Parts: sequence; structure tokens; C-alpha cells
Amino acid sequence: MINFDFKNPTRVIFGKGTISQLGDTVKEFGGTKVLLHYGGGSIKSNGVYDVAKKSLDDAGLRVTELGGVRPNPRLTLIHEGIEICRSGGINFIIAVGGGSVIDSAKAIGVGVPYDGEVWDFYTGKALPAITLPVATVLTIPAAGSEVSFSSVVTNDDGAFKRPLDINVIYPVFSILDPETTYSLPPYQTACGISDMLTHVIERYFTRVSDVELTDRLCEATMKTIISNAPVVLADPKNYAARSEIMWSGSIAHNNILDTGRIGDWASHMIEHELSAINDVAHGAGLAIIVPAWMRYVYKHDVERFAQFAARVLNIEQNFHNPEITALRGIDALKAFFKSIGMPVSLSEIDIKEESFKSIAEKVRKIDEDKGIVGNFVQLTEADIVEILKLAR
Amino acid sequence: MINFDFKNPTRVIFGKGTISQLGDTVKEFGGTKVLLHYGGGSIKSNGVYDVAKKSLDDAGLRVTELGGVRPNPRLTLIHEGIEICRSGGINFIIAVGGGSVIDSAKAIGVGVPYDGEVWDFYTGKALPAITLPVATVLTIPAAGSEVSFSSVVTNDDGAFKRPLDINVIYPVFSILDPETTYSLPPYQTACGISDMLTHVIERYFTRVSDVELTDRLCEATMKTIISNAPVVLADPKNYAARSEIMWSGSIAHNNILDTGRIGDWASHMIEHELSAINDVAHGAGLAIIVPAWMRYVYKHDVERFAQFAARVLNIEQNFHNPEITALRGIDALKAFFKSIGMPVSLSEIDIKEESFKSIAEKVRKIDEDKGIVGNFVQLTEADIVEILKLAR
Repeated sequence: MINFDFKNPTRVIFGKGTISQLGDTVKEFGGTKVLLHYGGGSIKSNGVYDVAKKSLDDAGLRVTELGGVRPNPRLTLIHEGIEICRSGGINFIIAVGGGSVIDSAKAIGVGVPYDGEVWDFYTGKALPAITLPVATVLTIPAAGSEVSFSSVVTNDDGAFKRPLDINVIYPVFSILDPETTYSLPPYQTACGISDMLTHVIERYFTRVSDVELTDRLCEATMKTIISNAPVVLADPKNYAARSEIMWSGSIAHNNILDTGRIGDWASHMIEHELSAINDVAHGAGLAIIVPAWMRYVYKHDVERFAQFAARVLNIEQNFHNPEITALRGIDALKAFFKSIGMPVSLSEIDIKEESFKSIAEKVRKIDEDKGIVGNFVQLTEADIVEILKLAR
Repeated sequence: MINFDFKNPTRVIFGKGTISQLGDTVKEFGGTKVLLHYGGGSIKSNGVYDVAKKSLDDAGLRVTELGGVRPNPRLTLIHEGIEICRSGGINFIIAVGGGSVIDSAKAIGVGVPYDGEVWDFYTGKALPAITLPVATVLTIPAAGSEVSFSSVVTNDDGAFKRPLDINVIYPVFSILDPETTYSLPPYQTACGISDMLTHVIERYFTRVSDVELTDRLCEATMKTIISNAPVVLADPKNYAARSEIMWSGSIAHNNILDTGRIGDWASHMIEHELSAINDVAHGAGLAIIVPAWMRYVYKHDVERFAQFAARVLNIEQNFHNPEITALRGIDALKAFFKSIGMPVSLSEIDIKEESFKSIAEKVRKIDEDKGIVGNFVQLTEADIVEILKLAR
């Protein structure tokens, strides 16, 4: 176990009917004039908008709306949000939606009190010291942004996608009502499941030794996601299973599972470039990359992969040949992704071998500053091409 | 899963050598004049005091000391601490020690800005709205108070022991250096292990259904505690195992494992009365009561007890007769307590059958306001006597 410094200040209000607490809770945190930030029309058709709006109105809050956040939230809309907040004297931001809406709200939050260009925070040119408080009403369990210190934003001017990770952007509170997820289409539900499961997998595969507690907490979360996934797909209004998935998505990314260890994150970096090419959903891209990455790197720690197979996927340990256990685990994970309707090969999303080299170059470039892709195994461009070949 | 509202704002700084960060971190939180609160001489003999004091001095902080906290922290010393803080203009409290020192510091923290008598907060006569910030340097992994919203204090005037549970008393930060636990004697180490394991057991046995994620997170924590306990007892300077135990003690009580469920807590209430009679250590008393409680209540949910046996203690499930699995799990837990040197019967601590009735009466009385003892099963006085008989 390595030394760590952990704090997660986000308050989580979880359960049926909790969105009606929105207005009063904003007031507890000192909000009076709020920006209500959201995406497309889904929160209007599923009723979430009405409940949230009524709660804010009942609490006597002045509400300004800014909709239109798209997947991979854009800097132009963030600029617009910052301007609205400044000119309207807004002192609180509420994100209603999934990870993209929340990430956009976080960017507006740090942008408002900053004299410079908010993009500076995403290139590392500056660090945000303060933010307008941001709260969330989560409607898509996937990214974990409702309890995380992360925001990923795309600069339309050249389409650079960059992350900001810093304690100041933890939401002050997040409301999670599993009933809001009843109307998520199966494909989007499955993409969210793939995303949250991969958040745990990225943390699980570490070279740090003596991490028993966090290993087991990771396994607990992965098992819960895997066992509830088929239930929510077969029975979208199953409250118990939707609850397990929703809370698992937050536990997967609130950084408790990160304490004392260093995750890998190469699969996330590779996937970002797939999404950039053909707009495949993040979770779907991960379902393609992760098993290929596993197959490429498992020999660096066969025991850990065997442990994953045995404890998470109930593969019986082959004591004479743990490598067989490890490989069966990877196959089982791929079969799981397939079973929930995810693509598991690049051919399914029309990415051909000709583009592998340029994808690998771009992945290496994202992380120019640090110069590394992956921590479990540090990957070269050639390694990334091999992983993409395994994902054909 | 039931609705919940969860927030844990305590920052945890974990690992080797982290105590030297104490002074600078206090300054980050605005502390200038600090009360350094501790117990007996152990922090002086094991070197923790010197490192902490040097860090505070190096940071230019003005330090006033108050030692002498005993197990079951007393109101008289808390009064003294409040007076010292007020007269010295102290604006930050640091607890160096275990649960008793931390609980005492929390009481001083809420007492300083309160016009009335601090005991009011423990009787429910008043609720604290603010506190002086409290930080901790943990040296005894057991109570979990370093990351909890709880403080338990004893009023010397009549020896009433009362808890205060409220968000405002979460420590602002806690430093956990596993090396500080190397010098803990085996019995005290084992008592801490019993205490933290029981914190999870109390949460695990719930009547709330559909709590898969938190069940599995509880199991992960219990397995880690059980597997590392013999290691730290056999090899007290094993950093890896001491780390697992120390972080498990915090995870056991930071209330993540409580989300969406209602724990039982009858064993804790019964144990408090044993400690009151003959000063048995809390963890040791729990090792006696918990298996007896289990044997008395398991028929209310044989499946849950079988799950506990199978998943936590690796008992093979008897599919034809799950009750056998459940009972084997209880036996295995009792054997575990015995193996780490805990007493497992009341006769070992000289509590005789004559006193069972009066113990049961007192237990019922503690909780007069709510009128219940236990949530998994609500116990009557007669039930408590039967449990004590099973613990003979």
C-alpha cells in the first residue's frame, strides 16, 4: 500500500423521491440565484425537469436555464454559461443529467470567478482555487462525475478533449434517484454499466502490492455491477437493481477504491481516441478495448488476473496453471460485455487496421507532458497498435 | 435499499512518515493556536509525541497541551479543555491517540463555542451547530472515531456514558501512520480488531433487503480484517498488515458501509454495560457478546447468516440445510475471536449469572428515549438475559 491523501466532501442524497429536496438543499448551501444546466430533452420527457423546477420554485430560488449540453461537453457552451452567471449574479449551479452535463457545470463553476480563459485549467496553464458551488441531479449512472473531482471538456476549436482533476470541483451535493433511470434505453444503460465497471477495472490492475482491502472493495463493486446488469436490462423498472447500479457507479469513482494504489488508465486513453474518430459511446469503446488490453498485458502479473477471474467472475482457480484461470477470466469479461449488448471488436464500429497507427500516435500525444500511457504496464505506440490488433 | 443522506468530509492522510505533515495541514485549515490533546504516556514513549510536536513547532503554531484522557473519556477533563481553549484563544484541537482521546477532543470542540453545559449535547437537550475544528493523529485502530461523526463521553457525576452522533463533529482531517501501531501490545491490538470487525457486523445484520453492494463491501472489509489479524499479532512490525488493519478500521466506521441499510447495534449496547461493571475493554466485551447474540437471533434470517458464513468465513454452503452453514459461521467467528486472544465467555471476565437481570435492565434503560434495543431483532429485557446466558 502506498501513502495517500483522500477526501471526498460530496454529500449524496439517495433514493426514491429525493429530487423534491433539491431547492431546500441548495438554500442550505447558500444558493439564491441558480443556473439550471442540462442536456437535451430527456429530462423534460421523463419528468425530472418538472420535479426539479418545482422544488427550486417552491424554495423561492431565482432560476436561469441553460440546456443543450452534448456528449463530450463543448467549451463554447461553457463560455456561454460563464457569461450568464456573471451577468446574472448567479451564485449556484445545478447540473441535471449525466457526466457530460456535470462536467460542463464544473467547468462553468471554476470559470466564473477566474479572470483568465477557463480552458487554461484544462491545459494545466492555471489551477482553479475557487468555484461557484455545483450540485447535481444524476440521471445517467456511468461516469461517476456526481461524486468525483474530475471534469472532461472538449475545445471545439480543434477538438481537443482534456481532463481537469482537482479537489475544488467536487460537487457540494448530488441527488441520486434510481427511478430517474427507468427510462434510459437499454444501449445507454449498458454503456453506463461498461463505463462504471471499467472505472473499477482501471483501479484494480495495479503494480502496487499489499492492497488487500481495496482489492476486495473493488471486487465487491464489480460483482455487484455484473450481477445487476442483466436484471436492469431485462426489467428496466426494477428499483432494487437500478439502485445497486446507480450507487455502484458512484462508489466506482469516488476514489475510495483508489486509496493506497495506482490505477492503470491506458484503456481510457485509448478509448478516447476511438470516440474521437467515430463518436462511439465511451462505454461501448471501453468494452472493445479493455479485454484486448487485458490479453496484451496479463503476463505481467498472471496472479492478479487469476485473482480477478476467480473472485469477480467465479472462474474456478486452476492451481496447476493459473494462466488458464487468467485467460478464462478475460474471456468471461468479454462475454459479459457481449451479453449486455456492447460491441467487443473494432470491426463492429468500423474502425479498420489502416487507422491503428494514427490512433496509437494520438494516444501517445494526449499525454505528452507525462510521457506515459498506462501504469500497470507503460505502453509504447507499438504496444498500442498490438492492443488494437487484438481488438480487431 | 432504503433512502440515505451520506457525507463524510474528513480528509485522511495515510502512510509512513505522514505525521510530519501535521503542522502545515493545521495551518491550511486556519489553525494558529492549538490544543494538543492526548492520553497517557504511550505517545511519548513511542516517539509520536516528538514528531507531532516538532511539526507543530516548525509550522510556527502556538501549542497548549492537555494530556490525561482515560478510556471512557470523562466530562471533567472535557470541562478543563473547554476552559483552556476559551482562556487561551485556541482555535484548533488536535487529538493524538485512540478513540477516547478523539471523542474527548470532539466534546471540547463543540463545548467551546456553546454558552450552555456541553453535556446537554450528550443528553439530547441541545444540538451543536458549530465546533472548533478537530484533527486527529490516530495511534490505535479500533473505534473509527478518526473518520466518524460520533463521540462517546462519560459523565463522572453518576457515570453515565452517552453518545453524540452529528455531522458537525467529523474531524477536518486525520493522519494515520501504520508505523505508530507497531508498539501496541497484542491484547490491545486484538481488542481493536474485535471492535472494528464488530462495527461491520453490526451494520451487516440488517432487515433491509436489496443491499447487495453494501453487503459485499462489508464482506470485503470483514475478510480483510480477519485475514490480517493473525499477521499483525505474529509480526507486529509488518507494515502491510498493519496498514490493512488501520485502513479497515476507518472503512468500517466512516458510514459508507451504512448507506441504504439500518444496522443492529444491540451487541454494542449490551457490551457498554459489561464495561461499566468490570472495566473489560470494549473489544473484548464485544467478542463475548456478538457470537451469543448471533446464536440467539440467527433464526430470524438464516439465509443472511449462511451468507455471512459462506462469504466471510469460507464455510461451504450446505444447500440442503442452510441452518448448518449459519451455525458453523457463528462457531468460526467465535473461534476467530479466541484465536486472537479475546475472551469468549462471561465467566472469563468474572461476570456471573446473578447480575444478568440487572445488566439487562440497564441496557433497556440506556435507550429509554427510543425504547428499542436492536434493529435486526428488537430485544426485550428477557431476550437480553437469554443472550447473556448463551455467553456464560
